[in-house]
Amino acid sequence: MGVLITLLDYTSVLIFALTGALVASRAQLDIVGFAFLACLTAVGGGTLRDVLLDRNPVFWIADPGYIGVAVSAAMLMFFTAHLFESRYRALLWLDACALAVAVTAGTGVALSLAQPAPVVIIMGMITGCMGGLMRDVVVGQVPLVLKQGELYVSAAFAGASAAVVADHLTETNAIALVACAAITLVLRAGSLRFGWRLPVYRSRPPRA
Amino acid sequence: MGVLITLLDYTSVLIFALTGALVASRAQLDIVGFAFLACLTAVGGGTLRDVLLDRNPVFWIADPGYIGVAVSAAMLMFFTAHLFESRYRALLWLDACALAVAVTAGTGVALSLAQPAPVVIIMGMITGCMGGLMRDVVVGQVPLVLKQGELYVSAAFAGASAAVVADHLTETNAIALVACAAITLVLRAGSLRFGWRLPVYRSRPPRA
Amino acid sequence: MGVLITLLDYTSVLIFALTGALVASRAQLDIVGFAFLACLTAVGGGTLRDVLLDRNPVFWIADPGYIGVAVSAAMLMFFTAHLFESRYRALLWLDACALAVAVTAGTGVALSLAQPAPVVIIMGMITGCMGGLMRDVVVGQVPLVLKQGELYVSAAFAGASAAVVADHLTETNAIALVACAAITLVLRAGSLRFGWRLPVYRSRPPRA
Repeated sequence: MGVLITLLDYTSVLIFALTGALVASRAQLDIVGFAFLACLTAVGGGTLRDVLLDRNPVFWIADPGYIGVAVSAAMLMFFTAHLFESRYRALLWLDACALAVAVTAGTGVALSLAQPAPVVIIMGMITGCMGGLMRDVVVGQVPLVLKQGELYVSAAFAGASAAVVADHLTETNAIALVACAAITLVLRAGSLRFGWRLPVYRSRPPRA
Repeated sequence: MGVLITLLDYTSVLIFALTGALVASRAQLDIVGFAFLACLTAVGGGTLRDVLLDRNPVFWIADPGYIGVAVSAAMLMFFTAHLFESRYRALLWLDACALAVAVTAGTGVALSLAQPAPVVIIMGMITGCMGGLMRDVVVGQVPLVLKQGELYVSAAFAGASAAVVADHLTETNAIALVACAAITLVLRAGSLRFGWRLPVYRSRPPRA
Repeated sequence: MGVLITLLDYTSVLIFALTGALVASRAQLDIVGFAFLACLTAVGGGTLRDVLLDRNPVFWIADPGYIGVAVSAAMLMFFTAHLFESRYRALLWLDACALAVAVTAGTGVALSLAQPAPVVIIMGMITGCMGGLMRDVVVGQVPLVLKQGELYVSAAFAGASAAVVADHLTETNAIALVACAAITLVLRAGSLRFGWRLPVYRSRPPRA
């Protein structure tokens, strides 16, 4: 379990760092700005998870290798972002992958600490959604997380909930984590590709 | 004291969750977006208070019932928000009530931990103001907390200060908490209803 | 070392509080709004540093004198901001000084806790940059920290890195701290005054 979670954390740091660097490229920052935004996005959600669960030290302080990965991803993107045909599409799809991995990492940590089900689900959602939210708020854009009519928080919620159910039914955590990642990714990707969505609130005239 | 604070926390979570859901309705989010914004608003201020005071675990991790209340409030609002004649007015008034209750909850916690007066006042202000601030920043609106020419932070400050004074003068904390809630609510409501305000900064020409 | 860090913390709180109050004057807030924004800016970065490093209690809870300094600075600015010929220029230059002092304070704390080099550098950057970032995000402006084509995060990074190098080479921490402050300030001031900058990302057409 420990190794699996470390692997998930590294993967989510890497992919989120790439999204942070893509946002930095759209904001035309310099290379240190790329690294800053990449690190914020990459470790933001997991840091919040660790602070709330009082895990000490925070994962990237315990192992600064995470920062190395995020900074390397930022450097890479600084020199290659122009190769993408559409940087915004690349951002959306990388962000979807990062979401799936990070929700799984957050859920896994909370499961391994034997937290109650609502806390597990929320930790999954926080780890998955908060890094991207910080990235978007800091550069002054409407957060992807709140974009109207898309599955995002909903995908994270469904994935984390599936993990909790699977964890109750099976003995092996690995199944729960795979279910979590798969469901989150499928729902988010389906929303991006096919426009899957939940009904949104629409104001209706008050009853007569 | 403990029971009273739990009650205050529950009440403030409920009312702040309603305001978060109202903001979600104005942003036309789906039902999971409602729940997300309701939870962020409802527990944001208290979470910050607990992290700063190093209270472990954070209140809603110790008792996930808070999350249940916030999510229920979001569901309710998703199906009933259209019944309000003006959702913005409803938001302002619910937010005023939530402010009064949450400032009191924050002040009560800090008093029960025997913190020095400035810390008590600040914890009251943080618990009261930060949830709403996060709600507004995340959806990209000018925070209510900083709206020019209204008593908001000032009302929180006056209420929390009154609690500190009352706590020094009397033996029973309950009086301090009632004073805190009453003063905060009266000042905020007076500002909304009658336009009470402090003088704001206006740039003047430099002296000749 | 302890005394020196306390002195740096006080100085950075004072100067950052002045910048927060200047931003409050531009947003035409009332006097409590001045104090709120001054405190948020003044202690925001250091608070994040302390929470991440699990230093208990947070510096301004251990010694509420910091809050007193920030509030006094806000009061002073409320009555004198109109004396500045250009409040925006004053803001930029005060912010540069605050950055240099705060980066040094953050670096010093992490060095005194014997953290590894990447963590020391990041703590310097967080302490220096995050207070101003919170100030700008809360009032809905593009953060100074991300202003395109200026050295800001880069100056913080260079200063903190210099401190790490100097700390390895010399026995006395004081030299490391002086180097950190000097390099951060010179780079930031050079960027403001002479337009020093790093190359920024520019999208180029994809290769043929």
